Amino acid sequence: MTVTRQSFQFADRIPSTPSIGSTTVTSPDHVHLSFGFAAPHLFPIEQLNEAATEAITSSGRQALQYSGAGGQGKIRQWIQSRSAVHGMHVKEDELLVTYGSTQGIDLAINVLVNPGDHVWVEAPSFFSALQSLRIAGAKLTSFPIDNDGVKVELIEQALLEAERSKAPLPKLLYIMPTFHNPGGVTLSVERRIRLAELAQRYNFFIIEDDAYMELNFTGEQLPTLYSLCPERVIYLNTFSKIIAPGLRLGWALAQKEVIQKMKLLMLGGSVGVFTQEILAQLLERIDFEDHLGQLKAYYKNNRDIMVDATRQHFGSDVTFHLPQGGFFIWLAFNPGVNTTELLPLAASKGVSFVGGRSFYIGQDGLHYARVCFSYCNGEQITRGIRALAEAYKEWKSGTVQIG
Amino acid sequence: MTVTRQSFQFADRIPSTPSIGSTTVTSPDHVHLSFGFAAPHLFPIEQLNEAATEAITSSGRQALQYSGAGGQGKIRQWIQSRSAVHGMHVKEDELLVTYGSTQGIDLAINVLVNPGDHVWVEAPSFFSALQSLRIAGAKLTSFPIDNDGVKVELIEQALLEAERSKAPLPKLLYIMPTFHNPGGVTLSVERRIRLAELAQRYNFFIIEDDAYMELNFTGEQLPTLYSLCPERVIYLNTFSKIIAPGLRLGWALAQKEVIQKMKLLMLGGSVGVFTQEILAQLLERIDFEDHLGQLKAYYKNNRDIMVDATRQHFGSDVTFHLPQGGFFIWLAFNPGVNTTELLPLAASKGVSFVGGRSFYIGQDGLHYARVCFSYCNGEQITRGIRALAEAYKEWKSGTVQIG
Repeated sequence: MTVTRQSFQFADRIPSTPSIGSTTVTSPDHVHLSFGFAAPHLFPIEQLNEAATEAITSSGRQALQYSGAGGQGKIRQWIQSRSAVHGMHVKEDELLVTYGSTQGIDLAINVLVNPGDHVWVEAPSFFSALQSLRIAGAKLTSFPIDNDGVKVELIEQALLEAERSKAPLPKLLYIMPTFHNPGGVTLSVERRIRLAELAQRYNFFIIEDDAYMELNFTGEQLPTLYSLCPERVIYLNTFSKIIAPGLRLGWALAQKEVIQKMKLLMLGGSVGVFTQEILAQLLERIDFEDHLGQLKAYYKNNRDIMVDATRQHFGSDVTFHLPQGGFFIWLAFNPGVNTTELLPLAASKGVSFVGGRSFYIGQDGLHYARVCFSYCNGEQITRGIRALAEAYKEWKSGTVQIG
Repeated sequence: MTVTRQSFQFADRIPSTPSIGSTTVTSPDHVHLSFGFAAPHLFPIEQLNEAATEAITSSGRQALQYSGAGGQGKIRQWIQSRSAVHGMHVKEDELLVTYGSTQGIDLAINVLVNPGDHVWVEAPSFFSALQSLRIAGAKLTSFPIDNDGVKVELIEQALLEAERSKAPLPKLLYIMPTFHNPGGVTLSVERRIRLAELAQRYNFFIIEDDAYMELNFTGEQLPTLYSLCPERVIYLNTFSKIIAPGLRLGWALAQKEVIQKMKLLMLGGSVGVFTQEILAQLLERIDFEDHLGQLKAYYKNNRDIMVDATRQHFGSDVTFHLPQGGFFIWLAFNPGVNTTELLPLAASKGVSFVGGRSFYIGQDGLHYARVCFSYCNGEQITRGIRALAEAYKEWKSGTVQIG
């Protein structure tokens, strides 16, 4: 039988863009301000090694099976007690361990959203969440942030208008209320309370992505949306920022009914138990508050270095909100600046960042740039910001042809 | 503001059934012939411990980051060379590491299937794949298996008929051609060749789920569908059966274009690197052929024990194909027997199995039962089969009221 190769239509849900913030640059001098990564020297390597040995030798046979030994239970208890510290008192069946918050976001979206459903997001918003929403077939509308987080009054107006004109109401709002990625801003208490009320009144769900909340430089703690409205919030967090991303462990808090449905979508049943056993052993070996204190001190110092360097090298050409936690500074250039064009020029100067365009659902965000202060050390941050400023000045002076 | 809690419509893609083959029974004497699990005492614990120490101490900071050190590359090389042993010569960009084959199945389905697309499966078929297909919105049609695997002549007739009557052709066929779960059968060479031709002629994809292929008790090796038709096959395999399921690592082989699209659906970018680093170290520390030889000898012996016990206790009341590899025996009772009714009675006698119903898209399969010989030891298998036979005899004699 001779056949000619026919073309084949793949599924519509496949996104067209590759992953953002990755790199192919291998030069050791290159400064990756694009990487939204934790600082590797702060990983608790020694205790992790002890934890792995203990997990493998004392409960290895169960840890390597589909089902685990005691680790899953211990991690769940840790999450419960840590959540309680932040005012979220959850029962055993209101909690799900996920592969990082990436999977948490994806599961939460897929539990809620049918193709064609309306979902509202912040502008800017986390690109992985936008990607998941596109794959799920959501119709996206975005609302701007300011220094107090997303403008909830605009959301309220839009809800009223939709109700009045019988337009579709949103089924879901995806939001990162604390130390926003990329914005660095935190949603004010007043807006949190109002948003929780709106979710109840208009019957939509909120995905509260709280991945950076523990990296709080001031100690000022605001109530989570989950604590204000547990029946309409899926709360997501992760060990990626507070322990290590390579473990790929995170969690979701929600009403029992929602957690059950998320579990059904996990198919395999649950997250691999091997790393859960190791993490359980690790959490018993570290003083978490002490460990967290080290992370916060380091990241805060890095933020200060980045802020100083930015003010020194950019002067009034960029503005930004001073983030009180998290990983990122969100640089606003003057409208007319095109950071997508700036990317290759900056790379040629030895620095990477993420262009603002990646964080928007449309063609907006071109005059923004996300720079990350967690992964690089102080020397690299200073060098990277200086290189970025040089690239910007060349771009501005128009002396360089950008291809 | 006072609000009454309104009802909320979750997404349509959520399945209604919980995971299959799990248990809440905790009695130590209970025999779990339902568990499709590897034998934990065969996990290479000592070498794994060394591997973990080496991975953490020598490349821990990268292993704990989003991106890894050298482990990912080493695992990819291992997969490439092992695939070559089985006649599949893949390039670097024709390979994707996944969270076990569960994720591989899900990604492959989501890359190919739009809601409403027609997908053909075997009857019986692996329940996790059926679940993934339902979530993706596939319209399912099934084709029976016999001792030589799925009846490809029926698939061919159906294709001809669909073409003649302008009915929709399938976009995808999901198949487990080697040591089928649950059937235990292997697709013959002739049928493999014919199926590969049909996939090319009728322009559909095949997901070849080959999770059990290495657990081959006879050494007789058939060509994979992938080797016959790489442009229309997504080949899936896993470390769950040959190393340990708790690691949650598997892989997919496919054309570059397909692999790229599967990667785009992974969102987070790639599988967590921590366990990849450890597995890479482990694979350098074990003699894989020797390790595999131990697995095969143990599972073959267990199969023989299960076969003997089944013949002794069931006589002519059940028939089954003698599996030449894998984990399962698929018991066919006489039509009229209802294994769903048998489940609680068997549980009361101290044994679990999976009722045939779970492996069918419709209401079929009621007179089948899947029993697994990999997880339990010989004594447990003998005791479990005896208890199952007792339960069956009570059911048959009709003396017991089943609720």
